[in-house]
Amino acid sequence: MEIIEGGVCAAKGFSAAGIHCGIRKNKTKRDLALIYSEVPASAAAVYTTNLVKGAPLTVTKKHISDGVAQAVLCNSGNANTCNADGIEVAEKMCSLLSENIAVKPNDVIVASTGVIGQKLDVTPIAVGLPLLVSELGSSKENSLNAAEGIMTTDTVVKEISVKFTVGGKECHIGGIAKGSGMIHPNMATMLVFITTDAAIAPEMLRKALSSDIQNTFNMVSVDGDTSTNDMVAVMANGMAGNEPITGEGEDFAEFMKALNTITVYLCRKIAGDGEGATKLIECSVSGAETKETAKTVAKSVITSSLFKAAMFGADANWGRVLCAIGYSGADVDVSKIDVSFESKAGRVDVCRNGAGIDFSEATAKEVLSEREINVLINLGSGSGEAVAWGCDLTYDYVKINGDYRT
Amino acid sequence: MEIIEGGVCAAKGFSAAGIHCGIRKNKTKRDLALIYSEVPASAAAVYTTNLVKGAPLTVTKKHISDGVAQAVLCNSGNANTCNADGIEVAEKMCSLLSENIAVKPNDVIVASTGVIGQKLDVTPIAVGLPLLVSELGSSKENSLNAAEGIMTTDTVVKEISVKFTVGGKECHIGGIAKGSGMIHPNMATMLVFITTDAAIAPEMLRKALSSDIQNTFNMVSVDGDTSTNDMVAVMANGMAGNEPITGEGEDFAEFMKALNTITVYLCRKIAGDGEGATKLIECSVSGAETKETAKTVAKSVITSSLFKAAMFGADANWGRVLCAIGYSGADVDVSKIDVSFESKAGRVDVCRNGAGIDFSEATAKEVLSEREINVLINLGSGSGEAVAWGCDLTYDYVKINGDYRT
Repeated sequence: MEIIEGGVCAAKGFSAAGIHCGIRKNKTKRDLALIYSEVPASAAAVYTTNLVKGAPLTVTKKHISDGVAQAVLCNSGNANTCNADGIEVAEKMCSLLSENIAVKPNDVIVASTGVIGQKLDVTPIAVGLPLLVSELGSSKENSLNAAEGIMTTDTVVKEISVKFTVGGKECHIGGIAKGSGMIHPNMATMLVFITTDAAIAPEMLRKALSSDIQNTFNMVSVDGDTSTNDMVAVMANGMAGNEPITGEGEDFAEFMKALNTITVYLCRKIAGDGEGATKLIECSVSGAETKETAKTVAKSVITSSLFKAAMFGADANWGRVLCAIGYSGADVDVSKIDVSFESKAGRVDVCRNGAGIDFSEATAKEVLSEREINVLINLGSGSGEAVAWGCDLTYDYVKINGDYRT
Repeated sequence: MEIIEGGVCAAKGFSAAGIHCGIRKNKTKRDLALIYSEVPASAAAVYTTNLVKGAPLTVTKKHISDGVAQAVLCNSGNANTCNADGIEVAEKMCSLLSENIAVKPNDVIVASTGVIGQKLDVTPIAVGLPLLVSELGSSKENSLNAAEGIMTTDTVVKEISVKFTVGGKECHIGGIAKGSGMIHPNMATMLVFITTDAAIAPEMLRKALSSDIQNTFNMVSVDGDTSTNDMVAVMANGMAGNEPITGEGEDFAEFMKALNTITVYLCRKIAGDGEGATKLIECSVSGAETKETAKTVAKSVITSSLFKAAMFGADANWGRVLCAIGYSGADVDVSKIDVSFESKAGRVDVCRNGAGIDFSEATAKEVLSEREINVLINLGSGSGEAVAWGCDLTYDYVKINGDYRT
């Protein structure tokens, strides 16, 4: 497997574009993105578990119920959620696209992200679509433009692609993501679009995606708020020419590995670009009785506001790690817990067997002043492991969210 | 029922004191508090559900297993938690007190609050106890001094007392509390000490307290972090001379009402004094199918970081209220939800039947700029109701917790 350029355009037969059509007030911000496959593709998606669901999710779910899609159309600046006419608008977006390019409305994955509860005016989209379609292309810039088109408070573009081999054929897979605030996915996730030219049956694509997100996007939290519009969608158009993957085995394992490379990378990008964040926090739990326990503990730690504020201050306040483990709901033996902090600057052990040990505050400060921190927790009770990703809690998170709508 | 002065000294036979003994570096901060009853009292307490428990809680639980206590000894500045010698130190505090005043060590409720994982040196307590005991008194200043002695990042003293009548006898009940950060009690709560001269059997006192906290302290959240040292303890010394309450009925109901007045007041004080908070947020949910649903929804809303940041910015971003209801886990019909914001400045309806309605942003800004905000949610599906208390998320929360230990 090898990292390559191209994002969602890395796989054969996919093109992309991103433009400013006028949904966002700031004219320098792209707000409409399109990903298109030359041929209809196997498609799978997972969605937020929030009972309040964005209208585009309902429409997308219906459209890919047959396991086929050919395009992703996504706007930023407005979530099209909690609006009386939401479904109608989302369906209109799909039929408008179909008037501009060869795609059936029910082969369109439609998505929206931005403020909740404000009507989405479809006019700028209708006016912008001819330009969007004319800008379609397969260069790396095209993927970058699409990645920008789905951003809201994100400060960096999130994009990755790799090449891998299935049954002797070179395949490609790439993805773009947006996500910065309201990030605490549950069984589903923020907006992520992945394309691949590997040939894989829709049911195996669904299986791969559902299994992967349990250890990737569902282990990310920026602020504990599960969004109404989370979605990860994958399209696999089979143009790599490999023998289609129709069951488990070596080829499926290879595909899962490539998919996981894409998703872990995007998870880290999303967590590290959490609203206001100055640091990416990775929490690695080992020694758990079960994987489930390890996951519960890892997620509880990266979700704790107190722990996150301590990370912002580079304060080795490990008591807050113990506290978050203790209230996580996981069944752990506190007297066996070890905790360390690690980063490029080194490693410092701060707690052994549930009690504090002497450590150098100066070293701890150095370790915690890096951009990427790993919190290592050993529960001393088994071989279950898990990793979760989060970020620090900063003044800027409050600033960004104190007046998001203006 | 009538609000009176005196706090924990309002009830007959109780005295209190608070001094600086040297656990906290700042000499102007009291760090040791004592509440004492002339005679042994019925006692009940509830504790944190965090698996990581402060050593004093383990010792207190043992001491009041017989339903009797005569004194509360509490230090601030150090939580005596996650220390290898924690139990030993907590027990030493009780035996030291017993050397200075007429109380059996196992009739002492002992508590600690402050940083986790640093050894608690018992020397300043040993040296300070004679002064602490000599300062015992029953004036309102004595209660205030004790209330100050248990404070950490609290910015205001939390104290209340009322008089009420049981079986024709005038009774008194009063309480003090500390709590500002790491506030998200679950089946137990922050540090609260309540005294009453009502005569009530230990099992009825336990029943009253366990029932009350479900709708009071367990409905408060400052930051979603359930502390390791939460405790609410009540002592009832019977000196009011009422016929002892030994079962349910009118007298018990009267006592429950008085207790609830104390606890609701202290809940509002704790939430309003949340670390860095500029506003008290009350979330009142009605129209739920069950009380449990109403509680889940109310608590989810006041716990949402995004909602709390919006309240800080006086931004009527009601989509975040809907979002928090949606991911709360409660089974609700989104299309029936109404939301309004209310304060001294008026009321503004922002959402009806799960969709936005037109409202004046100027009025909303005025309503949300007050110190106390009520979020009114009607789920339109039944008669279940609940109230939860929280606060806004501010720059100062991050500042306070970015470097708590220094």
